Amino acid sequence: MDKRRETDTLGEVWVPADRYWGAQTQRSLEHFPIGVKNHRMPLPVIRAFGILKKAAAQANAELGELPRDLAELIVRAAQEVIEGKLDEHFPLVVFQTGSGTHSNMNANEVIANRANELAGQPLGSKSPVHPNDHVNRGQSSNDTFPTAMYVATVLELRRHLYPAVETLRDTLARKTEEYAELVKTGRTHLMDAAPITLGQEIGSWVAQIEDALAFLRLAEEGLHELAIGGTAVGTGLNAHPHFGEVCAEYIARETGLPFRSARNRFAALAAHDALVNVSAALRTLANALFKMANDVRWLASGPDAGIGELILPANEPGSSIMPGKVNPTQCEALTMVCVRVFANDTAIAFAGNQGNFQLNVYKPLMAHAALESIELLSQSILAFERYCARDMQPNRERIREHLERNLMLVTALNPHIGYDKAAAIAKKAAAERKTLKQAAVELGYLTAEEFDRWVDPLAMTRPGMH
Amino acid sequence: MDKRRETDTLGEVWVPADRYWGAQTQRSLEHFPIGVKNHRMPLPVIRAFGILKKAAAQANAELGELPRDLAELIVRAAQEVIEGKLDEHFPLVVFQTGSGTHSNMNANEVIANRANELAGQPLGSKSPVHPNDHVNRGQSSNDTFPTAMYVATVLELRRHLYPAVETLRDTLARKTEEYAELVKTGRTHLMDAAPITLGQEIGSWVAQIEDALAFLRLAEEGLHELAIGGTAVGTGLNAHPHFGEVCAEYIARETGLPFRSARNRFAALAAHDALVNVSAALRTLANALFKMANDVRWLASGPDAGIGELILPANEPGSSIMPGKVNPTQCEALTMVCVRVFANDTAIAFAGNQGNFQLNVYKPLMAHAALESIELLSQSILAFERYCARDMQPNRERIREHLERNLMLVTALNPHIGYDKAAAIAKKAAAERKTLKQAAVELGYLTAEEFDRWVDPLAMTRPGMH
Amino acid sequence: MDKRRETDTLGEVWVPADRYWGAQTQRSLEHFPIGVKNHRMPLPVIRAFGILKKAAAQANAELGELPRDLAELIVRAAQEVIEGKLDEHFPLVVFQTGSGTHSNMNANEVIANRANELAGQPLGSKSPVHPNDHVNRGQSSNDTFPTAMYVATVLELRRHLYPAVETLRDTLARKTEEYAELVKTGRTHLMDAAPITLGQEIGSWVAQIEDALAFLRLAEEGLHELAIGGTAVGTGLNAHPHFGEVCAEYIARETGLPFRSARNRFAALAAHDALVNVSAALRTLANALFKMANDVRWLASGPDAGIGELILPANEPGSSIMPGKVNPTQCEALTMVCVRVFANDTAIAFAGNQGNFQLNVYKPLMAHAALESIELLSQSILAFERYCARDMQPNRERIREHLERNLMLVTALNPHIGYDKAAAIAKKAAAERKTLKQAAVELGYLTAEEFDRWVDPLAMTRPGMH
Amino acid sequence: MDKRRETDTLGEVWVPADRYWGAQTQRSLEHFPIGVKNHRMPLPVIRAFGILKKAAAQANAELGELPRDLAELIVRAAQEVIEGKLDEHFPLVVFQTGSGTHSNMNANEVIANRANELAGQPLGSKSPVHPNDHVNRGQSSNDTFPTAMYVATVLELRRHLYPAVETLRDTLARKTEEYAELVKTGRTHLMDAAPITLGQEIGSWVAQIEDALAFLRLAEEGLHELAIGGTAVGTGLNAHPHFGEVCAEYIARETGLPFRSARNRFAALAAHDALVNVSAALRTLANALFKMANDVRWLASGPDAGIGELILPANEPGSSIMPGKVNPTQCEALTMVCVRVFANDTAIAFAGNQGNFQLNVYKPLMAHAALESIELLSQSILAFERYCARDMQPNRERIREHLERNLMLVTALNPHIGYDKAAAIAKKAAAERKTLKQAAVELGYLTAEEFDRWVDPLAMTRPGMH
Repeated sequence: MDKRRETDTLGEVWVPADRYWGAQTQRSLEHFPIGVKNHRMPLPVIRAFGILKKAAAQANAELGELPRDLAELIVRAAQEVIEGKLDEHFPLVVFQTGSGTHSNMNANEVIANRANELAGQPLGSKSPVHPNDHVNRGQSSNDTFPTAMYVATVLELRRHLYPAVETLRDTLARKTEEYAELVKTGRTHLMDAAPITLGQEIGSWVAQIEDALAFLRLAEEGLHELAIGGTAVGTGLNAHPHFGEVCAEYIARETGLPFRSARNRFAALAAHDALVNVSAALRTLANALFKMANDVRWLASGPDAGIGELILPANEPGSSIMPGKVNPTQCEALTMVCVRVFANDTAIAFAGNQGNFQLNVYKPLMAHAALESIELLSQSILAFERYCARDMQPNRERIREHLERNLMLVTALNPHIGYDKAAAIAKKAAAERKTLKQAAVELGYLTAEEFDRWVDPLAMTRPGMH
Repeated sequence: MDKRRETDTLGEVWVPADRYWGAQTQRSLEHFPIGVKNHRMPLPVIRAFGILKKAAAQANAELGELPRDLAELIVRAAQEVIEGKLDEHFPLVVFQTGSGTHSNMNANEVIANRANELAGQPLGSKSPVHPNDHVNRGQSSNDTFPTAMYVATVLELRRHLYPAVETLRDTLARKTEEYAELVKTGRTHLMDAAPITLGQEIGSWVAQIEDALAFLRLAEEGLHELAIGGTAVGTGLNAHPHFGEVCAEYIARETGLPFRSARNRFAALAAHDALVNVSAALRTLANALFKMANDVRWLASGPDAGIGELILPANEPGSSIMPGKVNPTQCEALTMVCVRVFANDTAIAFAGNQGNFQLNVYKPLMAHAALESIELLSQSILAFERYCARDMQPNRERIREHLERNLMLVTALNPHIGYDKAAAIAKKAAAERKTLKQAAVELGYLTAEEFDRWVDPLAMTRPGMH
Repeated sequence: MDKRRETDTLGEVWVPADRYWGAQTQRSLEHFPIGVKNHRMPLPVIRAFGILKKAAAQANAELGELPRDLAELIVRAAQEVIEGKLDEHFPLVVFQTGSGTHSNMNANEVIANRANELAGQPLGSKSPVHPNDHVNRGQSSNDTFPTAMYVATVLELRRHLYPAVETLRDTLARKTEEYAELVKTGRTHLMDAAPITLGQEIGSWVAQIEDALAFLRLAEEGLHELAIGGTAVGTGLNAHPHFGEVCAEYIARETGLPFRSARNRFAALAAHDALVNVSAALRTLANALFKMANDVRWLASGPDAGIGELILPANEPGSSIMPGKVNPTQCEALTMVCVRVFANDTAIAFAGNQGNFQLNVYKPLMAHAALESIELLSQSILAFERYCARDMQPNRERIREHLERNLMLVTALNPHIGYDKAAAIAKKAAAERKTLKQAAVELGYLTAEEFDRWVDPLAMTRPGMH
Repeated sequence: MDKRRETDTLGEVWVPADRYWGAQTQRSLEHFPIGVKNHRMPLPVIRAFGILKKAAAQANAELGELPRDLAELIVRAAQEVIEGKLDEHFPLVVFQTGSGTHSNMNANEVIANRANELAGQPLGSKSPVHPNDHVNRGQSSNDTFPTAMYVATVLELRRHLYPAVETLRDTLARKTEEYAELVKTGRTHLMDAAPITLGQEIGSWVAQIEDALAFLRLAEEGLHELAIGGTAVGTGLNAHPHFGEVCAEYIARETGLPFRSARNRFAALAAHDALVNVSAALRTLANALFKMANDVRWLASGPDAGIGELILPANEPGSSIMPGKVNPTQCEALTMVCVRVFANDTAIAFAGNQGNFQLNVYKPLMAHAALESIELLSQSILAFERYCARDMQPNRERIREHLERNLMLVTALNPHIGYDKAAAIAKKAAAERKTLKQAAVELGYLTAEEFDRWVDPLAMTRPGMH
């Protein structure tokens, strides 16, 4: 493999000749052979570095900290990072230095080399564009990496997760309407309980999902405050005093999103509580999905020796040994994703409290875990919607059978004859395997006509409307 | 012990003659001898049941569902619950049925018996006030218990935790001002870094605490939506159609807080995502406190062979064997509390996703964990403020020594001579044990005068002001 | 309240005249008003301190480090601690200093004062027995507290948890035998699957519980290695070189258990990985119980619109609104306890990795969490056994109905006609609502006689025996 | 892209013509577009399926369940899977059905097609080798997937993790010897404490690592019990009664490891407690590493304004803005890996308790998380050993300075003058900034000669040897 010489403050390093990265990237590549296959620094972070470095050059130029021509070269190279054209020049892994310095330097080096190439200079020349003095101008890894983390997370939430959640929510909301009057047995403690409609049952999932989405959007706002401008320790040393604000504005312009400079930049380097909050909101979303997916598969269980009130699409043969078996596989994939999200939240929250003094050094881990959760949730929600939720159907016959046998319909009698007598009816019906009506009349607590008037399952599901 | 006969739908039960509880409470007491010593249903939940049962009676009376005289008796008895006069009549534990039915029935039975006593009737008579038909009128455990959980949690947050956090925040904010110009060595990766002021360092903790408090207040809003009105499965079966709203209004009036009836009562029984969110916000608060307490004890470490930049109050002899040792004990207690809060959050989040169909049956566990976190945080924050934060002092001499030796002051030279030359100066100074100024001048990169002008630690901490 | 003067190295302190504790206990009491109601230092730790201090006095006497008469006084006072006679003199909470120094000093002070009282001297005199120089002789909090933690944990495991687990295991094992031939529908993915017997199903729980118990006993062995002898930092400074071994022997003699001095005392102070392992084993036990309790309540679900194959004892009325409802309340209490155990494990594991240098300062938290888990598990397992497992019954009619309809019986045909033809039979039967036999014969794949011979549910559950 | 027709019981499917997989794999590929980039079913699981399918064919042939020629074809194809020659034919992801059925069928289809190809038959012909009837003979996904999980996990532990841990342990053990007499200040509560040697400090890490490794090996034994032989629900339906044992023997022979058939196959499908235990043991190992890495970076902190007692190799420039800064990057990578391991343990434990009835459907998630932890730990431990532990050096001058100032040396006086007088000396020295000796003599508690004799730091670290 062809190599070229690159240098940094520790000396010289040989890098592959056809790669834009420089000495510091190469050092990291060699010292951190950890998770090379599946744990590369997530691409959304790389792209966000492109956005940031472009905005930084623009801001420095506007503030007179960088010659316009150098800024222009940086902007052109950074634009290629944004567009994904230089992805293969970002080889580093998540498990590097905890500040993400290596990835920041990777961005600085790639952009500098590419900019110099655009200027007709050889790779490794550091001229006219220097990775530290120009691309990293007014910046430190300590403020750029968290900035890139937050920008990447917000973009992924908005581009992928929110639309996926809304798609599922809409599908379920349609079913809420569709089955608004399909009365069925409610269940509490897993035991037969007062009736509800299938629409109400599905609507409960919709409510949880909507609330989770709303809370996530609220939590996302914390990510709008960017560390940029804090440089090494939060003071903004070596940055133009307005650099943070102006750079954040350029980022906002580039993304169309309300990013701004953090109110307290010290805290923005030392902790990432806003990301911990977003992770918690992802966890709540996963909680809601987990409960829904469990409900779906239990309602579809059986088909004969289970509940069997829902029929799910038969997407794959379910068993390598039991012919004809069909399983709730989308529920299973989704719930496994939810558990992964719970685990990622554990990582993020733990990492989030391990900062010391002016820096938290678990940044790449936190970014990776959050972005993994967002990616897996987005994809599994869409798969669940497409291959399960959209085409699932009620088993009306089964639902009717269950409702007819439901002794808890007796609850409707409480206001008329009191809890104790109603309980006596239920106990007699259960013990003697009679219908509630038979038991009620035999006990003499009410007439058959009264029973029919008072025990109306559909009316029981909407007491305000009788 | 004197006993009296009480009955429920399963038959008769003998209870202590001097207790207001009835048959169902007694059954639970006998079947759940689990954690009797330290895991009683938290008193804030009991008191919140008092608030709820009072409000329910008022609402039922207003809506014509309950005769005024019965309502009045219930209100009087419930008021005694609110005031803590009947605490000893609530003997049940957290580890009972997961709906909290036993505690709801405990409240119904105690209030009914006490009301009947007020009406001159014997205990156990269920007349004129019946525990189910009157005290529990229009209610089910499934909506009352989560209502009591949420009311209790909001009250404890507001009465205890917020004031405690604000007290600490104010103390730290005063120190932020006081030490606004006390320059010291910053630290990133635990290594000496560019300077900051002690005020900035403390201010970073304040920012985290303030943000955590703001997020907690936001999350708290989710608890304002009460399940009441949903009864057994969310439909409101057997309740007056306006009962939920009216009852919530009475609760709001009683507490002076913006409680209201939940938008989706099905979800309000089946899941408690709002409490999961509050728990997450408590976790973030604990994260912030954990980081602060760790910073404090590390800054106070030594006194000689550590950092030693802070001096903490010497409250207790630190060692049973090492004479004269003083330890950061308040930091230790606070961080142990934080870990407990993390653990409680684990419980709440796990429990929160284990609901099935129309009910989550981990309610008492969730309530207990949340209230434990709130109590322990409130108390340990106040102890930390009083016995550590308030009187901690900087060790100015030590801070000065550290700053003088700090090679990272070289960072201020980047804009003047570039990163690479600045690095060469730092390396020379470190290798030859010289001052930065000596090394800089010897390398010929700048004059001694330039060094003094450019390397000004205080100015480095506020680059916008030079 | 009457007070008396006590002193320590920080000066004088006034303590209640009728309490044996001294100055350092009093200081802690005042500085840590955190969780006073429910978070006292667990009694098993207090009693274990009694065991330890007695053994230490004996060891020091044997090694010539303490006059026999002083040792005898200490032994007598410590014996009272062991017997619980002095419980009220241990008022401190868990959330104190992270080394547990305050509780070690509490033990030293109480024992010294009580010993001096036995010697006819006034409280507070520190003579003839001095809390540090004699009761704490050859010890430090740093080695005594973890010693007490481990001794307490082992005793609680053996006295309470193991017997409880064995009781439940035996009850379930009896049912495994009893229902060894009761064939029923198996379930995978919640869907009807090949048949098993109820005995096999219950036996699976037994296997998990037995394996969990075995692993717990294995993990417990790590707790046999005691820190005692390490004193302040692990070196054993100020202790007789054989003190650790001899003291551990006395502890072993007192308890009848194989305690011994730790191989590496530095690690024994700096970390408590053995307790983390025990907590993990408790978690696995809770995992097994959680799965079992969930299976039980699902199998008992319905009774009509669920699975309904098990009938649980009706211990309490299940609902305050739905008359006649009976719920799986013991399952609910047990699973809530399991979640608490998971949470406590989170606390222990987190705390376990937060040690620095020669000491982990999360000791009281870890001890409390482990002991809480052991207590709650012990009690809830016994309650579950007594009020649920012992008297639960199969619903044989329901089990038979489920089995008769089970299309997965077709699996038995694979070896005879191949998976693809068997699948065709199952699909036809499902689509046309026919029995498997009808479908099989109509498809011409086999005769009715062959079907009856090959499809024998009981034989399917023990293929080795046909 | 060229396609060919494949079929399964749900009908026909078109698959890429050059791939060995069949209809069921293709269905999964289309229905689960989740984590395609970084969440493929781990290769160790694929390879373990090769081992299993080879062993199954051998066992079936031996037991007369499969013609020798078909078995031989399967063995040849499976051997290619073992050798990694067919990796690209295993395209499925972790987030599929929770039983791993799709991956089992992937293995069945690939091996059948490759075997048929070896027999000169076209892909998709299912003849002479049928994926279900022959490759899956006597098996179900429900027993094969957990078998493959366990085999894969054991192999990865033994091939990668144990050697890595031993390498680090050996390096540290050498340093334990090397610095056996390098006396330094001990630290408890982060505060200066009695002296230890650097060898003792490092030896404490070694002890933790060794104990963690021993516990991991113990936990690994649980994975030796394989589910194979249980088929669909644990009964072994359709398998030869000796198939499980014989197949496990062939696996043992292939791997040289003591695999055997599980004692209770029902539990082996329904739960994976053995894997939960292994995960817990990995967590404890990570706990030990986390504590060590934190100690290392704190000891290396500064270099001036921190502890500075260790000097770490300078592998990369530490800062993009602060020239000359060197950071403990290997510690950071390792601790981030540890946090990932903690998170994975959360996933595994959670998933481990979510089984229902005869099956746990979180298998792929559990396998993935465990293997990820093993891979990342193995790699980061080696990187830490190579680039940090091996070449780290004590800063002897700094260590000496710290020791000389250490007031806790006073502890050595306790046995001679008592704790109270020793404390007075320490307090006086601290207050008046005198040496301990000065203070001691001035207080008249001992002579200078006595001081020198009694206060000998090296002797204090090995009290048994004076």
